[in-house]
Amino acid sequence: MARLVMKFGGTSVADLDRIRNVAAHVKREVTAGHEVAVVVSAMSGKTNELVALCRGASVLHDAREYDAVVASGEQVTSGLLAIVLQDMGVNARSWQGWQIAIRTDAAHGAARIAEIDGALLVERLQMGQVAVIAGFQGIAPDNRISTLGRGGSDTSAVAVAAAIKADRCDIYTDVDGVYTTDPRIVPKARRLDKVSFEEMLEMASLGSKVLQVRSVELAMVHGVRTFVRSSFEAPDSVRVMPNGDPYGTLICDEEEIVEQQVVTGIAYSKDEAQISLRRVADKPGVAAAVFGPLAEANINVDMIVQNISSDGKFTDITFTVPLADYERAVSVVKSSDSFEFESLESATDVCKVSVIGMGMRSHAGVAAAAFKALAEKSINIRAITTSEIKISVLIDAAYTELAVRTLHSLYELDKA
Amino acid sequence: MARLVMKFGGTSVADLDRIRNVAAHVKREVTAGHEVAVVVSAMSGKTNELVALCRGASVLHDAREYDAVVASGEQVTSGLLAIVLQDMGVNARSWQGWQIAIRTDAAHGAARIAEIDGALLVERLQMGQVAVIAGFQGIAPDNRISTLGRGGSDTSAVAVAAAIKADRCDIYTDVDGVYTTDPRIVPKARRLDKVSFEEMLEMASLGSKVLQVRSVELAMVHGVRTFVRSSFEAPDSVRVMPNGDPYGTLICDEEEIVEQQVVTGIAYSKDEAQISLRRVADKPGVAAAVFGPLAEANINVDMIVQNISSDGKFTDITFTVPLADYERAVSVVKSSDSFEFESLESATDVCKVSVIGMGMRSHAGVAAAAFKALAEKSINIRAITTSEIKISVLIDAAYTELAVRTLHSLYELDKA
Repeated sequence: MARLVMKFGGTSVADLDRIRNVAAHVKREVTAGHEVAVVVSAMSGKTNELVALCRGASVLHDAREYDAVVASGEQVTSGLLAIVLQDMGVNARSWQGWQIAIRTDAAHGAARIAEIDGALLVERLQMGQVAVIAGFQGIAPDNRISTLGRGGSDTSAVAVAAAIKADRCDIYTDVDGVYTTDPRIVPKARRLDKVSFEEMLEMASLGSKVLQVRSVELAMVHGVRTFVRSSFEAPDSVRVMPNGDPYGTLICDEEEIVEQQVVTGIAYSKDEAQISLRRVADKPGVAAAVFGPLAEANINVDMIVQNISSDGKFTDITFTVPLADYERAVSVVKSSDSFEFESLESATDVCKVSVIGMGMRSHAGVAAAAFKALAEKSINIRAITTSEIKISVLIDAAYTELAVRTLHSLYELDKA
Repeated sequence: MARLVMKFGGTSVADLDRIRNVAAHVKREVTAGHEVAVVVSAMSGKTNELVALCRGASVLHDAREYDAVVASGEQVTSGLLAIVLQDMGVNARSWQGWQIAIRTDAAHGAARIAEIDGALLVERLQMGQVAVIAGFQGIAPDNRISTLGRGGSDTSAVAVAAAIKADRCDIYTDVDGVYTTDPRIVPKARRLDKVSFEEMLEMASLGSKVLQVRSVELAMVHGVRTFVRSSFEAPDSVRVMPNGDPYGTLICDEEEIVEQQVVTGIAYSKDEAQISLRRVADKPGVAAAVFGPLAEANINVDMIVQNISSDGKFTDITFTVPLADYERAVSVVKSSDSFEFESLESATDVCKVSVIGMGMRSHAGVAAAAFKALAEKSINIRAITTSEIKISVLIDAAYTELAVRTLHSLYELDKA
């Protein structure tokens, strides 16, 4: 017997038929003897509808009122799923964020979970009652409803799992796991049985859309074993792996992964824009002068490249920002009067391709091999950044697929 | 400066344009210097949609889950109206039932308000903040959301008005007041400037659909001056009466009504069914034997007529039930084995017409005049019941309009 959190997103609860399907998944786990807490999103399309109403009411709407309006979507789903579960003979009840309570900070509209009191939930779970929890929402210090921002239900699920000390947090999604890369680009991409928190964090932040970055961070901090699996399987005949485990990808501590691969996966992100400043005065504080205003404007600068100046007087600075923030970033840089530059060059048709793997820490030559393979395909590298477990290169977007395929075979990820 | 509660129903908040219209009404009162609490229903059609989802989820749905689902409708409206008010420069915030808190009993789905803590609301009102309150909902002793049953927002409004000691509770509706009778039947029907709680209670329970009976009861108990007015007037040019009061009907204590009419209005209800039991054994306990099972089946028996038995052995019993409960009532009576009768006769095409007026208490002959007038029009009276301030007659439904018009002129209600 285990204690499980099961999370279902908007498409999984889009209508009553799909909610019945979700209930059947839940019932299977209850019948198997597990204690179950379920976290649900709003029915697909509902959140957009509510957001549109708020925007229609006022462009500059109060985030606290927005939260009260938008959180109603999850409230409806939680009640409906509880009703359907009861109808199937499963003891269940719904829980709103303020009832548990899931306490957040005061940042209405994009709140962070501060604390979850798991005591009431655990008491009910031990009595055999399924807890159906409205995801995405909590209660702020002002005793008003808060929401966690888009994709917040993943975060709710992981946070609840940590609070009730769940054995596993199952994220039911429209894919059956985490892959070595995007199967649409590389048909031979393989599903990973296990991936470490650190690797998943890099993949999540680099464009693999399986899980929200925040939920992976939270899972890593609290050591929540998080399992990505398909919500489209028939609830009464889920696939299992040869060892009897369900089919999917477990995101876990690296110690749980016996055979660590050097490279685990290739990720890419096309939502990047590159900005280069030519002949910036090379003196102390110039980086701060460039990036300070961008940070104040809440623009997330990613890759930063500054070469050693050749003449000791001027240097070139290149950095990337999310594509959505590109125009704002350019205007912030241009309007800053604390530094000077000769010209600003930029590109929006660029792509960041990344090689990720825990094994890199102890294997030399991983980066060099990547650069060589890309060069052989005549792919020009605009910028490079690296971390202990990741190498990222910025290239022209037109070469995305070629680069991903090249790197995927280079590290033999095609092979089972 | 006064303290006002303003209540707007579903059609008044059906979309963002109408919500803006509501906000303009609110702003007018705020600009006039009043402290304002607003109570809103769900957007028109929304509650039906949510109820349908619950029914689709399970015919026998848990009332606590139903409440969580259905209460979300008012949650959305309260947030949206607060946003629109802020956009118009009015300081406002939304309040959910559990935030105030509006405490109810445990009867989920049809809860009664037990207690409202007005302290927080009054504090904010005095700071000049408009309170936008989700109607229809509260919090039950189990710390879960409860709803008050259909039309509950009227009740919410009156209960909030009592809790914050409001000077008046304005019910904005699709009619501009309470009339002497249905203007569709009697074009000369007049709007009443004032009507007593007691009279309104009889009118509300007798088919005049302006206000929910429960809200009138509550207004009477707590002495809440309740004002029925139109939500369709332009917010910036509301009609006023010669004395400067707004246009509508004030429901108030009879002492506030200087010139008490003998008869205030004529009400009618077609949602009645008549059941007659012939030759029931006339012995002690027979009435209890007949009506006990109906009460247990939660069927609301209205008129009851039992004549003195002519032979001392058998009697006839006639009573009415709501049309919706008619078939169930017949089957309850037929399946009862604690009394016997020769035959059961029934009629569903009947109508109850009532004459209502506080002045009746001190004026003799009101009933006699009604019977005479109806007889002159050859309208057969099937049954009669009376109270201190009301005379009701059950007649064939075909004669409804004739009876209402006859009584309306008899008591000179046509005259200004």
